[in-house]
Amino acid sequence: MADHEVLLVRLRPEAAKIDDAMRADLAEVGNDLLAQVLRHGLFNGGKRVRPLLAIFASRLLPVRELGGIDENRLYRLAMVFEYLHAASLLHDDVIDRADQRRGKATVNKVWGGDAAILAGDYLHARAMLIAGSEGGQRALSLISAATSAMVEAEFLQMQNAEVQEFSEEKYFAVLAGKTAALIAAACETGIMVAGGGESEQLAARVYGYNLGLAFQIVDDLLDYLGDPDKTGKAVGNDLVEGKMTLPLIHVLETGGTKERGFLLDLLAADRTVRSANIAAVQAILANANGFGHARQTAVRLIDTARQALGRFPAGPAAEILHGLGQYVLTRKK
Amino acid sequence: MADHEVLLVRLRPEAAKIDDAMRADLAEVGNDLLAQVLRHGLFNGGKRVRPLLAIFASRLLPVRELGGIDENRLYRLAMVFEYLHAASLLHDDVIDRADQRRGKATVNKVWGGDAAILAGDYLHARAMLIAGSEGGQRALSLISAATSAMVEAEFLQMQNAEVQEFSEEKYFAVLAGKTAALIAAACETGIMVAGGGESEQLAARVYGYNLGLAFQIVDDLLDYLGDPDKTGKAVGNDLVEGKMTLPLIHVLETGGTKERGFLLDLLAADRTVRSANIAAVQAILANANGFGHARQTAVRLIDTARQALGRFPAGPAAEILHGLGQYVLTRKK
Repeated sequence: MADHEVLLVRLRPEAAKIDDAMRADLAEVGNDLLAQVLRHGLFNGGKRVRPLLAIFASRLLPVRELGGIDENRLYRLAMVFEYLHAASLLHDDVIDRADQRRGKATVNKVWGGDAAILAGDYLHARAMLIAGSEGGQRALSLISAATSAMVEAEFLQMQNAEVQEFSEEKYFAVLAGKTAALIAAACETGIMVAGGGESEQLAARVYGYNLGLAFQIVDDLLDYLGDPDKTGKAVGNDLVEGKMTLPLIHVLETGGTKERGFLLDLLAADRTVRSANIAAVQAILANANGFGHARQTAVRLIDTARQALGRFPAGPAAEILHGLGQYVLTRKK
Repeated sequence: MADHEVLLVRLRPEAAKIDDAMRADLAEVGNDLLAQVLRHGLFNGGKRVRPLLAIFASRLLPVRELGGIDENRLYRLAMVFEYLHAASLLHDDVIDRADQRRGKATVNKVWGGDAAILAGDYLHARAMLIAGSEGGQRALSLISAATSAMVEAEFLQMQNAEVQEFSEEKYFAVLAGKTAALIAAACETGIMVAGGGESEQLAARVYGYNLGLAFQIVDDLLDYLGDPDKTGKAVGNDLVEGKMTLPLIHVLETGGTKERGFLLDLLAADRTVRSANIAAVQAILANANGFGHARQTAVRLIDTARQALGRFPAGPAAEILHGLGQYVLTRKK
């Protein structure tokens, strides 16, 4: 097994505890259909990355410094990040009219868009309640700010698509809100409830933020270069959808006239034409350093994330969070 | 002017202060398109009933008993109820594919369902943050419970529609969650932040809950008996949509075989047939006491609401809340 696979095995018992906390919480749902829809949305093979980050961030400080958070409270608070993530996926799938997620039918496919919208609203309300009761006002602020940032980033993305604007700067502005904000909030919340002070919170936030950005960039790379048997997605899907990701944006910003012309024409063409030209685009992005640039950017972001971890004493939690950086760079799915 | 019109004029300056609080809060939205969408969703001629209830509930106690809530905090907390109401309308309009609300194009019509879903999510997150920061954990719990109840009621309604089940009991179960829960929470939150104890909170809740139920029943009556020029809706719209409301349910549960047979056949028919039979249904519901029963139920609920107000000393706030009961029963739109 590769190092990162060993790491994932080590994390499994923790992920199981998060699942237990979610199951116990869902037992409180009064309506049986709603409960069924929520289970479908929450238990779909997710790796529980966000809650795991909150949990290990809470263990970064030596025990003597801990504020005495009890385990039950910690897992419930960690679960909030899975709820918010699942709520945003439920709503995303309605927006994208997606039929499948991780090889399973989406909630909107099985029960309709109304059920998916409402189930997302429920998870959102429940997440905020638990954030407030288990983490207090500060956790609520952090988490609510991350949710607001997610929505603002979606609107920024809509505006960019409308005017067909792209730049590395705009790409990162969207990424920061859509992916990094919630991951950063998970890390910051973890260390905050464990009694970490401002400088520790900042370090955990910097770690999560950079890890989140790198995670998404690797996702963009896997879309072009991944093995469909492992990723579960067709190669070049982002290109077909007209989604501007870092490898493409880099070549459009820095490539030669010929490459840029070809890519711009293709983006103005329809899906069928784009679909037929995936291999040609792969070759251009490889030769004009699109993939190389994205990969180097991800490596640099993970370096920054790991440097932030240097603020904390060595120990099992720091080791796992360090390893997660490696996992982000080497994952195949 | 009728009494209730005088009351609405008296409430206008308070409604304007709620609007000011919302405008000040929206100034913090970073994305200009999102801000525009939120303004469209929030400033559409709404009467601000929920925030007004929170504000007047907070003034039910004599000043010497007040916990010293400052006005700014009170209006911001009251505004939370308008945000949650608007968020649920934004999502409802996506679910119903509605093009118009109060004679204006809906957000989903103008900017698409994705913008409406996301704007609702933003208002929801913002509402929870403000509830927690201005009202503390108890306000957050109250409000989050009301939001969860709204979602559970929607699922109950879906299930009822699926199996074509109806009964007065089921009707009230849906109504309690969809309408009364948030109005009750507004009243309870108002008095709680003003320093009211448990028995005062319960009284405010009972007032809001019963007022909310009556409000919706009168809405159902206006659908059959209102003046379209005033309500802005076509007569018999609920019937055409196949929506089971109290006048209809009462006749289906207690009417003669002939009336019940006619109504059941009509409900099984298509929209065009129902649309052509509105006048016939109006006559049946009038003769078989459908409207009378609904009206009596609303009057009884308003009586209960007003009795709960008896717990508080006489004064301007109690007078206004008493008057709102009258308004609910006599409103024409």
